[in-house]
Amino acid sequence: MPMLSLQNPVFAAYAIAASLMILKAVAMSWLTVVRMIRSNGGFRSPEDIRKTPLNPNPDPAQLAPDERVERIRRIQMNDLENLPFFLVAGFLFVFTQPSPLLAQWLFYGYVATRLAHFLAYLSAQTHDMRAALWTPGSLILIYMAAKTLIVALGA
Amino acid sequence: MPMLSLQNPVFAAYAIAASLMILKAVAMSWLTVVRMIRSNGGFRSPEDIRKTPLNPNPDPAQLAPDERVERIRRIQMNDLENLPFFLVAGFLFVFTQPSPLLAQWLFYGYVATRLAHFLAYLSAQTHDMRAALWTPGSLILIYMAAKTLIVALGA
Amino acid sequence: MPMLSLQNPVFAAYAIAASLMILKAVAMSWLTVVRMIRSNGGFRSPEDIRKTPLNPNPDPAQLAPDERVERIRRIQMNDLENLPFFLVAGFLFVFTQPSPLLAQWLFYGYVATRLAHFLAYLSAQTHDMRAALWTPGSLILIYMAAKTLIVALGA
Repeated sequence: MPMLSLQNPVFAAYAIAASLMILKAVAMSWLTVVRMIRSNGGFRSPEDIRKTPLNPNPDPAQLAPDERVERIRRIQMNDLENLPFFLVAGFLFVFTQPSPLLAQWLFYGYVATRLAHFLAYLSAQTHDMRAALWTPGSLILIYMAAKTLIVALGA
Repeated sequence: MPMLSLQNPVFAAYAIAASLMILKAVAMSWLTVVRMIRSNGGFRSPEDIRKTPLNPNPDPAQLAPDERVERIRRIQMNDLENLPFFLVAGFLFVFTQPSPLLAQWLFYGYVATRLAHFLAYLSAQTHDMRAALWTPGSLILIYMAAKTLIVALGA
Repeated sequence: MPMLSLQNPVFAAYAIAASLMILKAVAMSWLTVVRMIRSNGGFRSPEDIRKTPLNPNPDPAQLAPDERVERIRRIQMNDLENLPFFLVAGFLFVFTQPSPLLAQWLFYGYVATRLAHFLAYLSAQTHDMRAALWTPGSLILIYMAAKTLIVALGA
């Protein structure tokens, strides 16, 4: 069986986890849009206070930071600091030929803790809880990259 | 024919679209450099106002935000929120074995709307137009990731 | 020999360089954590000044930017602008079947200059030196993406 095939349970688990994380990341952009519409503000570019069909009553205050929008931007920034590296590290980890069970625990464990981190950040839980939910994903990432490095160096 | 080969028209289309988007992303860094040089400012680090061959007459005002530089930084930020996820989602979408025609429409459609979005942002068109040009790319991304998820779950 | 196998020296070199860059990127998050703990500040969310076991004496000043923390955030931002594109461009470059020697020079050259750039940024060297250390990596990235584009278009 080829390694890079959805028939390989390890690669299929990766593809499932990666797709979920990509959809989660894209959802942050849409959530930013939703909150900008609801707040009618939190914009960033000078031209965003030009009168348009979607912004019939522009106001310079629309360019001020809006905490409900900024919160999603911080969450999205956290995604950008983490997800692209998971997406590549998880893919390369497939080449180390882990057992399907281990791969599923790591991939789905990453997804589960990232979603929990998102909910904690969205609902403004404490910094301690956010840190506790961010840490396992980061350790999974380190483990996968370190394992790939060791296997590739020994190949 | 192997799936991951430039002889596979689906993978070749992905490689072309991905390379173009990578070159576009890298161009934003260089455009930031060009505008920092032209504005002789828009720097971000305290050490950037040290006297050097490239900055013979340093001035604390060089650390103030410069709108022409900040615009490129916002465009680049928008790239970071979108392109890495397209690069991975497009790759995984190849494994769902779409028809070459569909794949080309999605990959090149993404590239075309991103370039149009860039031109609209660069020339400070309205928020409405920027939103209209950002949306198709985001929907293509969602479609590719959702399709990959469904196929991987059913495999 | 299959192209995507750690037995292929070109792919192995990519996997080694990619793993190193991923570990470097993840290290920035941990370095931010270390510096936030040492500065007991540099936080970003309103809820981060709630009293918790890890923050027994909260103070609104903890939300002010802290230069030692902000420096790592700027370094991380520079990583986000560069590394995800290297990770994908390097992978696609494998399909152009470069000689192992060329691939190793490009991949390891990228890693070496990025690490040097990191040390220069961390120790607040001049903007000129940072620019000189950033440029080779960016040129490697452009070369790999352009080469992939040309090969894929001709396939």
